Amino acid sequence: MSESQTEYDLGITCDMHVHLRDGEMCKLITPTVKEGGISVAYVMPNLSPPVITLERVQEYKCTLESLAPETTFLMSFYLCKDLTPELIHAAAKVGAIQGVKCYPAGVTTNSAQGVDPNDFTVFYPLFKAMEEEGIVLNLHGEKPSVAGEKEDIHVLNAEESFLPALKKLHLDFPKLKIILEHCTTAAAIKTIEEINADVKDPLDVMVAATITAHHLFLTIDDWAGNPINFCKPVAKLPSDKRALVQAATSGKPYFFFGSDSAPHPIENKAKHVGVCAGVFSQSLAIPYLAEIFETQGKLDTLKNFVSDAPLSFYALKPEDIKSNQNVTVFKKTTNIPEIITDGKGLRVAPFKAGDELHWAVRWD
Amino acid sequence: MSESQTEYDLGITCDMHVHLRDGEMCKLITPTVKEGGISVAYVMPNLSPPVITLERVQEYKCTLESLAPETTFLMSFYLCKDLTPELIHAAAKVGAIQGVKCYPAGVTTNSAQGVDPNDFTVFYPLFKAMEEEGIVLNLHGEKPSVAGEKEDIHVLNAEESFLPALKKLHLDFPKLKIILEHCTTAAAIKTIEEINADVKDPLDVMVAATITAHHLFLTIDDWAGNPINFCKPVAKLPSDKRALVQAATSGKPYFFFGSDSAPHPIENKAKHVGVCAGVFSQSLAIPYLAEIFETQGKLDTLKNFVSDAPLSFYALKPEDIKSNQNVTVFKKTTNIPEIITDGKGLRVAPFKAGDELHWAVRWD
Repeated sequence: MSESQTEYDLGITCDMHVHLRDGEMCKLITPTVKEGGISVAYVMPNLSPPVITLERVQEYKCTLESLAPETTFLMSFYLCKDLTPELIHAAAKVGAIQGVKCYPAGVTTNSAQGVDPNDFTVFYPLFKAMEEEGIVLNLHGEKPSVAGEKEDIHVLNAEESFLPALKKLHLDFPKLKIILEHCTTAAAIKTIEEINADVKDPLDVMVAATITAHHLFLTIDDWAGNPINFCKPVAKLPSDKRALVQAATSGKPYFFFGSDSAPHPIENKAKHVGVCAGVFSQSLAIPYLAEIFETQGKLDTLKNFVSDAPLSFYALKPEDIKSNQNVTVFKKTTNIPEIITDGKGLRVAPFKAGDELHWAVRWD
Repeated sequence: MSESQTEYDLGITCDMHVHLRDGEMCKLITPTVKEGGISVAYVMPNLSPPVITLERVQEYKCTLESLAPETTFLMSFYLCKDLTPELIHAAAKVGAIQGVKCYPAGVTTNSAQGVDPNDFTVFYPLFKAMEEEGIVLNLHGEKPSVAGEKEDIHVLNAEESFLPALKKLHLDFPKLKIILEHCTTAAAIKTIEEINADVKDPLDVMVAATITAHHLFLTIDDWAGNPINFCKPVAKLPSDKRALVQAATSGKPYFFFGSDSAPHPIENKAKHVGVCAGVFSQSLAIPYLAEIFETQGKLDTLKNFVSDAPLSFYALKPEDIKSNQNVTVFKKTTNIPEIITDGKGLRVAPFKAGDELHWAVRWD
């Protein structure tokens, strides 16, 4: 990489973890996937009620495509006891979903119907069907908080406490593709590295991790007193952030981008109790990333993080992608707005609102 | 203690760490010291600008006494380079202050003019004067956050990182009375225990710690997403909370009550960026404590925590106390209001707003 290089071709860009909601929020946010420089978006199913039927997931995808015709949407089911192996096979047959998202009960927005991460065996018939069909298991890898005699689980160790369950799932289903979503700790990075120690070919990666843009910037001090930066999993310590930045910029095929961009109306962020968890980074996803990759002198690895690694892991073929335009990120100072709004009362504060970024995107 | 005992005489009750502000907030909050069951309040000097002159501290005390004639106010200076040994001697001579509060720069509300905790030697002439006069040094024991090659200091380890500085201060000034204010970690409790290992008589305690009410309830999960519970030092892990509860209920003379009750207008707590740090617990101080002491079966040690230990440490005599009424805490279910207001636009959300407490206070 030349230090003076001012633009980088990123290929077909992917954000493998987006929350596009429904209703008015969906209308406001869905077009921002493209604005942020993303071609392919993997869509989370935690609507209320959650997405768990073929009809609903197809209808949701239609809605999203009508709002953003050039964006490729990959769809998912919400893991729960209503899902059956038969449904997985049927959904795979028509290409309705690429994955199933697992939320531990109660850990984040709309996760009340989630699962008990201490007891995955009830889902083993489902995981077997997913393994057979190449359907990805997307894990929100946190144990729910508890304080007591036996163990303390809290927002800081919730992810690390989950890692043994991840390893056991991989042992029990070695051909099931698993993603530890939005990982936030050095411990998680180490576990993903260990699992992939013998991987020679990107196509052999079975367990990967997504990393958000905001976790490359934030530590605990940044959300203490700043609900705009409060999300689950919470941003951890400086040493964790360094491990995430190193992993994201490493060029390795098992670390790739999933923004976990999660819009909330600003009135649900500016509260003295019950602030919604989630950082909204969709509208400037690639520029946020470029900012960090630049500080590391690693802009040449950004294409792996947002394109090569995710396309390979999800085994996407050119015919799966609606737009074949490449994204280029280039040097340009832009101001992050204080608010993104539909002009009809819906207002969302973007990550780093009011700050300046030094990269922008264009489509070639 | 009898399990069925439904009231406890607490003697002359003390809250050795209160923020009473100035202006309209002061008018609203100062009377709540007595409402919360407290006779003696040690008042923090972090007004804007900070309290650093004899005239100002006397004027502030007059204001407080006019608002709450039956409450005894102990006053303090804000540690900064404008203070001189001569001023300490002069203030001690007229009994204007009982202590000097040290804020590390930038760690909490109105601490911009605070000191660098890596370099206390500049204040050694001042500490010598304080030692001679029996003036207490009140330490906000946190190092400011920094992330870097040499060390990472963040809101979680900021207090533990400060403890070596506390130990050095005690070694250098063995007769200076020092309080580690609002301590929040098992590490801090351990350090205070170690320093006092050889103490036989309460009068020999030179280094003590105050503990707030809210830190006996809260852990990191409680302020993640709930700015009402966000304060500095932040509430830590469940294991830290257990250590605090054990220390508070231990009956030891070097752990006593300092609520660090810190009112903010609710609009400064319900913000998506820049939430003010501070929990307001003044108006129900004793009932909050009784709630925790009851869960431990230790209501019989509450009098030590709020009366015997602080009166002894500050060496207060009966003639220093304006009211000689004893406080009794008794079983009575009360609802914590959602808001405390002056009816003229100032609104403060109390700790655990909307919850229920099972103890109340009366003055005998």
